[in-house]
Amino acid sequence: MSSSLGTLFRIHSFGESHGTAIGVIIDGCPAGILLDEENITKQLQRRRPGQSPLTSQRKEKDGFEILSGLHKGKTLGSPIAIIVRNTDIRSEDYATWGDIYRPSHADYTYHSKYNFRTPIGGGRASVRESVARVIAGALASQILKEELNIITVAWVDAVGKVEAKLFDKEPMKLPKTIEEVEKSIVRCPDEKTAAKMIEVIEKTRKDGDSIGGVLGLVAWNVPPGLGEPVFSKLEAELGRAFLSIPACKGFESGSGFNGTLMNGSEHNDIFYNTNDENSKLNQEQDKTEQVPELKTHTNYSGGIQGGITNGMPLLVRTAFKATATIFHPQKSVNESGEEVTLKAKGRHDPCVLPRAVPIVEAMANLVLLDAYLQQRARNPEWWLRWRR
Amino acid sequence: MSSSLGTLFRIHSFGESHGTAIGVIIDGCPAGILLDEENITKQLQRRRPGQSPLTSQRKEKDGFEILSGLHKGKTLGSPIAIIVRNTDIRSEDYATWGDIYRPSHADYTYHSKYNFRTPIGGGRASVRESVARVIAGALASQILKEELNIITVAWVDAVGKVEAKLFDKEPMKLPKTIEEVEKSIVRCPDEKTAAKMIEVIEKTRKDGDSIGGVLGLVAWNVPPGLGEPVFSKLEAELGRAFLSIPACKGFESGSGFNGTLMNGSEHNDIFYNTNDENSKLNQEQDKTEQVPELKTHTNYSGGIQGGITNGMPLLVRTAFKATATIFHPQKSVNESGEEVTLKAKGRHDPCVLPRAVPIVEAMANLVLLDAYLQQRARNPEWWLRWRR
Amino acid sequence: MSSSLGTLFRIHSFGESHGTAIGVIIDGCPAGILLDEENITKQLQRRRPGQSPLTSQRKEKDGFEILSGLHKGKTLGSPIAIIVRNTDIRSEDYATWGDIYRPSHADYTYHSKYNFRTPIGGGRASVRESVARVIAGALASQILKEELNIITVAWVDAVGKVEAKLFDKEPMKLPKTIEEVEKSIVRCPDEKTAAKMIEVIEKTRKDGDSIGGVLGLVAWNVPPGLGEPVFSKLEAELGRAFLSIPACKGFESGSGFNGTLMNGSEHNDIFYNTNDENSKLNQEQDKTEQVPELKTHTNYSGGIQGGITNGMPLLVRTAFKATATIFHPQKSVNESGEEVTLKAKGRHDPCVLPRAVPIVEAMANLVLLDAYLQQRARNPEWWLRWRR
Amino acid sequence: MSSSLGTLFRIHSFGESHGTAIGVIIDGCPAGILLDEENITKQLQRRRPGQSPLTSQRKEKDGFEILSGLHKGKTLGSPIAIIVRNTDIRSEDYATWGDIYRPSHADYTYHSKYNFRTPIGGGRASVRESVARVIAGALASQILKEELNIITVAWVDAVGKVEAKLFDKEPMKLPKTIEEVEKSIVRCPDEKTAAKMIEVIEKTRKDGDSIGGVLGLVAWNVPPGLGEPVFSKLEAELGRAFLSIPACKGFESGSGFNGTLMNGSEHNDIFYNTNDENSKLNQEQDKTEQVPELKTHTNYSGGIQGGITNGMPLLVRTAFKATATIFHPQKSVNESGEEVTLKAKGRHDPCVLPRAVPIVEAMANLVLLDAYLQQRARNPEWWLRWRR
Repeated sequence: MSSSLGTLFRIHSFGESHGTAIGVIIDGCPAGILLDEENITKQLQRRRPGQSPLTSQRKEKDGFEILSGLHKGKTLGSPIAIIVRNTDIRSEDYATWGDIYRPSHADYTYHSKYNFRTPIGGGRASVRESVARVIAGALASQILKEELNIITVAWVDAVGKVEAKLFDKEPMKLPKTIEEVEKSIVRCPDEKTAAKMIEVIEKTRKDGDSIGGVLGLVAWNVPPGLGEPVFSKLEAELGRAFLSIPACKGFESGSGFNGTLMNGSEHNDIFYNTNDENSKLNQEQDKTEQVPELKTHTNYSGGIQGGITNGMPLLVRTAFKATATIFHPQKSVNESGEEVTLKAKGRHDPCVLPRAVPIVEAMANLVLLDAYLQQRARNPEWWLRWRR
Repeated sequence: MSSSLGTLFRIHSFGESHGTAIGVIIDGCPAGILLDEENITKQLQRRRPGQSPLTSQRKEKDGFEILSGLHKGKTLGSPIAIIVRNTDIRSEDYATWGDIYRPSHADYTYHSKYNFRTPIGGGRASVRESVARVIAGALASQILKEELNIITVAWVDAVGKVEAKLFDKEPMKLPKTIEEVEKSIVRCPDEKTAAKMIEVIEKTRKDGDSIGGVLGLVAWNVPPGLGEPVFSKLEAELGRAFLSIPACKGFESGSGFNGTLMNGSEHNDIFYNTNDENSKLNQEQDKTEQVPELKTHTNYSGGIQGGITNGMPLLVRTAFKATATIFHPQKSVNESGEEVTLKAKGRHDPCVLPRAVPIVEAMANLVLLDAYLQQRARNPEWWLRWRR
Repeated sequence: MSSSLGTLFRIHSFGESHGTAIGVIIDGCPAGILLDEENITKQLQRRRPGQSPLTSQRKEKDGFEILSGLHKGKTLGSPIAIIVRNTDIRSEDYATWGDIYRPSHADYTYHSKYNFRTPIGGGRASVRESVARVIAGALASQILKEELNIITVAWVDAVGKVEAKLFDKEPMKLPKTIEEVEKSIVRCPDEKTAAKMIEVIEKTRKDGDSIGGVLGLVAWNVPPGLGEPVFSKLEAELGRAFLSIPACKGFESGSGFNGTLMNGSEHNDIFYNTNDENSKLNQEQDKTEQVPELKTHTNYSGGIQGGITNGMPLLVRTAFKATATIFHPQKSVNESGEEVTLKAKGRHDPCVLPRAVPIVEAMANLVLLDAYLQQRARNPEWWLRWRR
Repeated sequence: MSSSLGTLFRIHSFGESHGTAIGVIIDGCPAGILLDEENITKQLQRRRPGQSPLTSQRKEKDGFEILSGLHKGKTLGSPIAIIVRNTDIRSEDYATWGDIYRPSHADYTYHSKYNFRTPIGGGRASVRESVARVIAGALASQILKEELNIITVAWVDAVGKVEAKLFDKEPMKLPKTIEEVEKSIVRCPDEKTAAKMIEVIEKTRKDGDSIGGVLGLVAWNVPPGLGEPVFSKLEAELGRAFLSIPACKGFESGSGFNGTLMNGSEHNDIFYNTNDENSKLNQEQDKTEQVPELKTHTNYSGGIQGGITNGMPLLVRTAFKATATIFHPQKSVNESGEEVTLKAKGRHDPCVLPRAVPIVEAMANLVLLDAYLQQRARNPEWWLRWRR
């Protein structure tokens, strides 16, 4: 079903942007985990509109309520249902649209699909739905941290033509923590580029226009062996998860589109043995049966080979188009098929990229955790070796 | 499960590249369809190695055997199992690799995942697995053609730095049929660019190296309303399907990564009413209740808005890295963790792009057909309007 | 996932019996349906404790709140989330149990499974979870009625040794409507047997004991063709759905266990042609291509042959054991492994059968609707013939 | 999809009874297991027709071919595809049926469903499909034995009115091994009852008639904690699996339908502490954190409480109706709707019960193994305690 994601760590999202509530059920969470509610609040804060001058000024407190799945703060193993009520709904802003199909929005496609016009304001196509993703992703990140020490960090890598392109720089200089990214309101850890991005976004807002960009993401400490062959290769699952975010139009892993310009002799990542004295080899097991722990000199593979992680940092990038809502007059067509002119009112982001950072992290964490649970189901010896 | 794809039109792939057979089960196919076996043969021919001087010289006849699901050539509604036996397996070519982890192959990641070394030659990570995809995709394309007149055409849009970039040209000049693409062995419909691509690939082969590139794909006559909200947006499902192909490292729909450079005011696709006298309005239904049939002047959305098709041609591009097998000596590490040097023997493609064309078409058709069956399950009135 | 059910009409249940709320997400509902909220209320009333002297006196108002999926009362095609808050939680009743594993409850098995003791009161194993099923089932019954005129009616067929055995009587005398069943508080449409059942239940309550029984169910107007071959045969899906209800220990379709005593020559249901002038043959279609509409003289098959409905009334029976909670002192063991004696306090049903009637109807309707949506996805011509 | 079963250990069945081959894909099998091919052969022998005078004389050698998923006899973790070609197809036996809908067969329902008549001989509704189940079940039983020492044994508990009713006797006298059951060709371990059953079946064959019966099944050494709450309770999954077998009309776990006659005070299974010095407590773990290992004095729960195993032997029974094929003349209707008389020719079982024994065992093992993999995915600490 299209509102569900995952195989073993599975989420079900619900709620329209201008309905009663947005929510998520998280099913398949192991029992006995002390839920870090503060982390959920923190991630929702990073996602919510109105957080900085760069974002939409819609004010949602985004206080969440946990309806099930916990006892004394610990997970029961049963479905965890969490809801966030919609409080600042100004439908009058939308009333001006009436029965017009807004350009490059989902109005026309939803109407065509359902023969029923979804409520003005975007319904399920709105980025408000991502509240569900961010809540579930916060729990996923907690478990990945506790079990495998995986840390996932995303950042704004480009806004329009202003590019940070952190992958081209020294890989080990990629941000190691969310805090490094949070220093800037535009969520680009490269200070100078961040300043230019802010400038571009502010100019775009003044112009009543919008602008797109690219996010980068790294996941640290991912052990080798995550991801499933053939149709659930890790980049396939990540790509699906990212491309399901509103306005996302592209995804690449490792060298991506630029990698197509390289020959195999350049692009191949050469292995070396870490010979790490402190490696995670479980002393009780026969060392000779162990797969050696390798690294590669370059990382054009982005940490994934044959769809499965190889122990190098996971590197992906994803493209977001300019939001469709702009404050210029635009021609369009209404439900009766008549050509009309419309102009948006309301509160919208000139650039969704900074708010998309926690959403993209959430999706990556959901995919990684699901891959981890599948892997330990089939190969618990692997779990004995790699658990923290 | 990672060897299964789809919700209602569902395929199960099996077989290792150097095992007994490769095969596919197609489950959920409607009954009473006269299977076009010639089309399967034709698509397998386009995929197979040895078809042109540009490809690997491994010789697989790829004759297929249908084990179930048909009666007098027609589908029964039951699972259709089709197998292709592996006939030209020269394991000795692979014996030289011994226990070495080949750079940027899946040897190390599979070993890490399963604690069991898959047979030399790639196992499930090999592009040979795509035989299953192409067979199932051929049936999907037949049904899409018969029911909705959908035609899906892919082509080689770039080889290394040699680019056709057909999306930047007059959109209606994109190839309308597979035949237009088949005119060139490199499968680029732009004659001059095709010649340059062939040159580059031949030079690459002589150098014992490999090279990547980009495929473009268009699907014609896609009605509005296909794709499911939130996690199964059409670009999400297409992205997942493409990124699951070996060596695929990137995916974009519509304007993709380049679209991030545009403002919303440029990028928005403006609707107009086709006022088409010959439109598909079902005369028996009340016209006034119908959603009007719209088109857009530009198509930066690539035919998808809010994850659902809008009736414009579907446009996507996808990046393939250079294949990892090259004939240069390379350093690597073996299973005992020792550093070694290896050099490939055997038969491999210097550039997988031409052979990837039918695979990418197959994946697109599988995704579109599954979306179509889901749509008509929920909204059969839609089916009455849009069926051929 | 074990809290989800269905393929196209899919529900996700959540909530513990003594937590904040019980709820359900209904995903895959077609758009544009005016939700009959009164029917949901009515079905919840039939399920709730305290409705009659025969049931537990726990008082839940079971007022529900719809959080998503509707606009002006009509379904949007998006997930419909509905919650019911738990209001009358007297945990002190449960405090007396402390750390004792109650006999034939799920305390010990849940503890063994999760290494974490679920909250006293039953958690997910409680029949309170069935609120989710009844809500979703009410919507399913509405759609089945509107689209196919299917009416599903269950009744109490036996309480302990007091049996109505309605299948053995004139089949056409089975209850045609829910109202016929509602005439008696024990929900047995056979007046005399109902009186005896009430007597037995009241005696059992006075004894501080509990008692089991059997439910019968008929679904009227089910067209031929529902159910999917092999693992999703209709009786398999119905059996799974019923056996997932707490305390359900058996399921049979048609002649069931008694049918094993018959020879094939008795048991075979002989077809005849209805020659029905008013049959649903769609006049626009070529009559000669139509499958004739048949009936059978007997109905030992219970309306299902080869896992697929044959157009006869659907007949199933299902067994519920006596509830485990009784008011006699019982020996047991606590979490430390010590043997102890316990005696229940609180509010419990001496016989769950009457309250199980709407739950069983709900499960049957959920299974039938899902089968219907799958059937029309694959064979919309069938839908043209059989829709109301 | 209806030809697939399981969540983590997942099988896909294909093939028509009179088509080219029957087969199965087993997906999700852990890697590195040395497949016991002899066990597959042995189980297929127990299932095949012609094995004894009691069964159909159709002669299928049922030699199987493994197409994928193994390397040097060991599982790779990839899909294992196994096929059995159909060799003794006498379609002429079926030709006499022509276009008649056989009573209580699936001819009419399949035709209604697909608008396409499946090939004479039963197609997917034939018990021949169970070859796929038995192959996959043999592998499942091997893994359950190796990992948890689980032994699953089924037997013929009743043929018509001749009943063994082994559950009513001393529970520890239930058969401990398949060998105990194999001593009799009717597969009833109670020697005297077996003799009577054989007599009844032989008389039935002479009469050209058929007869039904009941199977019993016990699974030994099942640890507590298997089964998933709510919709995937273990009895729900077992019930679904059994009721999906052709001719199966009923399922009960533990006390089943007879249990409805008991009061709770009789039916509750009282726990006691095993105090087992040799219990499986993992010495490295803190004993005090362990859930104690309990047993119950009676086992009316059949080893399942709240849908989850409790460590007692798993006990279920299942009803099979008389096969529909008999050699008496019967009235029926043909595809044109005309009433006709038919008489069967060919080779059919007067009683399917003995051949159903390995099928039922296979289904139970498939369900148990899937539950085990799910349990260790979520709670690997449980695995450390209970693995062999």
